[in-house]
Amino acid sequence: MEVHKGLADVVVSETSLSAIVEGQLSFSGYNIDELVEKDASFEEIIFLLWNSRMPSREEFAQLQHDLHTHMALSESVIACLKIQCRQNLHPMSVLRTTVSLLGVFDPYAEEMDERSVYIQAISIQAKIPTIVAAFARLRKGLDPIAPREDLSFGANFLYMLTGEEANPDLVRAYNHCLVLHADHDLNASTFTARVAASTLTDVYSCITGAIGALKGPLHGGANERVFDMLSEIAESDTRDVAGYLKTKLDNKEKIMGFGHRVYKTEDPRKKHLKRMAKELTQEFGKEDLYDLSCEVEDYLLKEKGLIPNVDFYSATVYHCFGIEHDLFTLLFSMSRVSGWLGHVFEQKREATLIRPRSKYVGPVNLTYIPLSEKETIGGNAQ
Amino acid sequence: MEVHKGLADVVVSETSLSAIVEGQLSFSGYNIDELVEKDASFEEIIFLLWNSRMPSREEFAQLQHDLHTHMALSESVIACLKIQCRQNLHPMSVLRTTVSLLGVFDPYAEEMDERSVYIQAISIQAKIPTIVAAFARLRKGLDPIAPREDLSFGANFLYMLTGEEANPDLVRAYNHCLVLHADHDLNASTFTARVAASTLTDVYSCITGAIGALKGPLHGGANERVFDMLSEIAESDTRDVAGYLKTKLDNKEKIMGFGHRVYKTEDPRKKHLKRMAKELTQEFGKEDLYDLSCEVEDYLLKEKGLIPNVDFYSATVYHCFGIEHDLFTLLFSMSRVSGWLGHVFEQKREATLIRPRSKYVGPVNLTYIPLSEKETIGGNAQ
Repeated sequence: MEVHKGLADVVVSETSLSAIVEGQLSFSGYNIDELVEKDASFEEIIFLLWNSRMPSREEFAQLQHDLHTHMALSESVIACLKIQCRQNLHPMSVLRTTVSLLGVFDPYAEEMDERSVYIQAISIQAKIPTIVAAFARLRKGLDPIAPREDLSFGANFLYMLTGEEANPDLVRAYNHCLVLHADHDLNASTFTARVAASTLTDVYSCITGAIGALKGPLHGGANERVFDMLSEIAESDTRDVAGYLKTKLDNKEKIMGFGHRVYKTEDPRKKHLKRMAKELTQEFGKEDLYDLSCEVEDYLLKEKGLIPNVDFYSATVYHCFGIEHDLFTLLFSMSRVSGWLGHVFEQKREATLIRPRSKYVGPVNLTYIPLSEKETIGGNAQ
Repeated sequence: MEVHKGLADVVVSETSLSAIVEGQLSFSGYNIDELVEKDASFEEIIFLLWNSRMPSREEFAQLQHDLHTHMALSESVIACLKIQCRQNLHPMSVLRTTVSLLGVFDPYAEEMDERSVYIQAISIQAKIPTIVAAFARLRKGLDPIAPREDLSFGANFLYMLTGEEANPDLVRAYNHCLVLHADHDLNASTFTARVAASTLTDVYSCITGAIGALKGPLHGGANERVFDMLSEIAESDTRDVAGYLKTKLDNKEKIMGFGHRVYKTEDPRKKHLKRMAKELTQEFGKEDLYDLSCEVEDYLLKEKGLIPNVDFYSATVYHCFGIEHDLFTLLFSMSRVSGWLGHVFEQKREATLIRPRSKYVGPVNLTYIPLSEKETIGGNAQ
């Protein structure tokens, strides 16, 4: 009986969302390089991942309208966010809880027709930025800022963080991040969403599960840990990149932001994020952080042949947006949810329960002895 | 490239929890028939599934102590439950949200050492009955009832529903249900928990995902739909079992509570649930419901060779506990969470990311055309 631990290279489903072929990533037939270079908007990517084709102008306008209709939070949701403003929690736990809560308040949550499923999806896609921005402010004692319909998806998020319109370079860079992170084959959070969707559960259940999986340090939680590492080196007296990394490697500690199950050569998203990291650190006078990142990259390539993945330069880019590092994975989720939702639609259409088997390796043929017949450790049966 | 849709018969991991061999189900070496016949307590099963062995008397006492320590809900959690008391929601959405919320308030939620992971687990296991009972009362405008340390896990839950101690026959039957449902190989919710756990995310994330998957009508949501079907037949003028089922079969509708991916012959849990259904319906003067269930079973076996699964007689048994049918899946989760948690421990020890692949079947090599260069449907490019 062969045990496929980690399901490495096991093909679980067909998809029309993303393809990784010869080290290139494309979304429904469009190479991500072209999408970034030609400044495709994240809203177009949402449509693409949900429909396997690009929108017409009318369809694009309709999607924008639907997003705007659903982006505000109710007072009940904000009340629950306030209850969650405590110290020493991880904001991904708040996002997980609050997306789950949206399902409690959505009158369409228990309906299974196509229109209801779409409403669940658009509600989640539209509200996640509002939740993240509201929580980021509430925990600092600031009031949430209402979303604006005249801004793009990315610009509106950056606006809701501060109440001021972000500069156009930041908005453009953030849109690129949203596009690059939107989907990526059956990564662990997407697969979590598909396993849940295969039971025909509601969309909130699928996305809540995916957020929980993305939170893990071996998945989306990596970018935040990259930033921790860079900060630790930068703030040390010696700023000794080689020494720091050598100690980590000698202790066999995992170095976050390097290596990938699927890519054996360069992650095709990395070059874009590295370029943005360079441009944004220059614009904001944080060149040191970029230089440090490059030194880490060079050392690990030279010493261990390790290659950065999508998380490594994301950390520097997100930092330039002025966002606290414990919110990095929430920014990731704001984009990836578009892919999760596309996969949920696909899995629901497939309507096949995902239910694998395990190989039993424990004890066999034991006889149950009631507790009352057992002796205590001291030997005094009572 | 072979596509393993639904992962049917694909072995994903090793386990020491449950084994299904030749139509028999055992937990870490103990056949469930023996566990039920000798009245093993659910608390012993929790220990068994978490440790792959039965507890000593001291270990059992410690587990009870730990459960008692963690079963009360904080005022913040009850406040959030009150906010969730609205009409037309599914209580599984409330359970999903509230378990997720527990993670926000647990100071151990972001720690990854063995002791912290255990505290997360015991907190979830201990609090789910309190959440379910509190919500069941709050939505009827009643105050929650505090848990009692002098009652067993099952007896305490039944007590918290009404404020009165349940009769011993009910407590014994409910304990049997808890034992029978505790684990079942890599069913979809357990697998959801394991995929999430493989990213090394926190325990709350894993269990929140599992609850969402269990909610699906192709999984735990089935028992509630069995009861809907039985009620529909019972309340019709003609009570025409054959006619009702024939129409369903002719329309190719799925009949809930029948058939199972793994068992091709009888589900070993069914005989126990059928016996309990018979005994409890007699005790509570609901023999009609039992007779109706038997008629449905007989008709579907004769006409289609369909065999009832664990959900079919669970519906009648749960109804006899006096529990509203939209809470049935929550009762299931109260037991199954013990298995989920055991699998989460196992997966975390394995430390292998579960990350399969998909086969891309969408369009290829498309050229992106910016929206501004597209014509509108009317042909008037602007």
